[in-house]
Amino acid sequence: MTNLPPVVNLAAASRQLNEPWQPRVVAALNDVHFKVAYVLGEFPWHHHDDTDEAFLILEGEVLLDFPDGTRTIGPGELCVVPKGLEHRPRSAEGARIALIEPAGVRNTGNLADDAKTTESDVWL
Amino acid sequence: MTNLPPVVNLAAASRQLNEPWQPRVVAALNDVHFKVAYVLGEFPWHHHDDTDEAFLILEGEVLLDFPDGTRTIGPGELCVVPKGLEHRPRSAEGARIALIEPAGVRNTGNLADDAKTTESDVWL
Repeated sequence: MTNLPPVVNLAAASRQLNEPWQPRVVAALNDVHFKVAYVLGEFPWHHHDDTDEAFLILEGEVLLDFPDGTRTIGPGELCVVPKGLEHRPRSAEGARIALIEPAGVRNTGNLADDAKTTESDVWL
Repeated sequence: MTNLPPVVNLAAASRQLNEPWQPRVVAALNDVHFKVAYVLGEFPWHHHDDTDEAFLILEGEVLLDFPDGTRTIGPGELCVVPKGLEHRPRSAEGARIALIEPAGVRNTGNLADDAKTTESDVWL
């Protein structure tokens, strides 16, 4: 089967992660990465100047705060944060998510080095 | 809530479709479209010269045939078909899927107009 494209179960891949806010790449579509992540607690407010960012929830519930309000998103739901828009993901109980965005995106966006800034483009 | 980014339930969106092989766009990430589709029966063999194409299964089972074999993919599973690789999706029982690929991609790829060729970039 080595000549066949790999198949990734997104939720199962995300369950391999124990550290929150440490996305890992599981597939690439041209220059776009599919990542999985475990999220727990609050991420800092930030934005991405150069790209949109898609959140797809796999397990649990995520709150996405925006300047004008909050979206609550659950399993199977997709929300694309437009480039430049301030946002803060958080999850009190913890959640497993997929992030879809171009390779090389800094997780904390415009922020100076934050405690949650992590290396980009690390494969699972 | 009008200033908040929309949230799309991919499976629910896909259930709005009754015609097989007629993808509909539900979200955009930069120049990449998230589409949903209902698939049933066999699609023609084809490839895309200029882009990879991601299949994410929402409900049901899809077989992806390649020159070297077949992948069977089910709910929550993702398979990225590399650009240039011949493939044929099929589903005997029918399935609901998401397709992630750049805007403007022709569904039947390199084929001359086929019975299944359909307009690109039509939003749900």
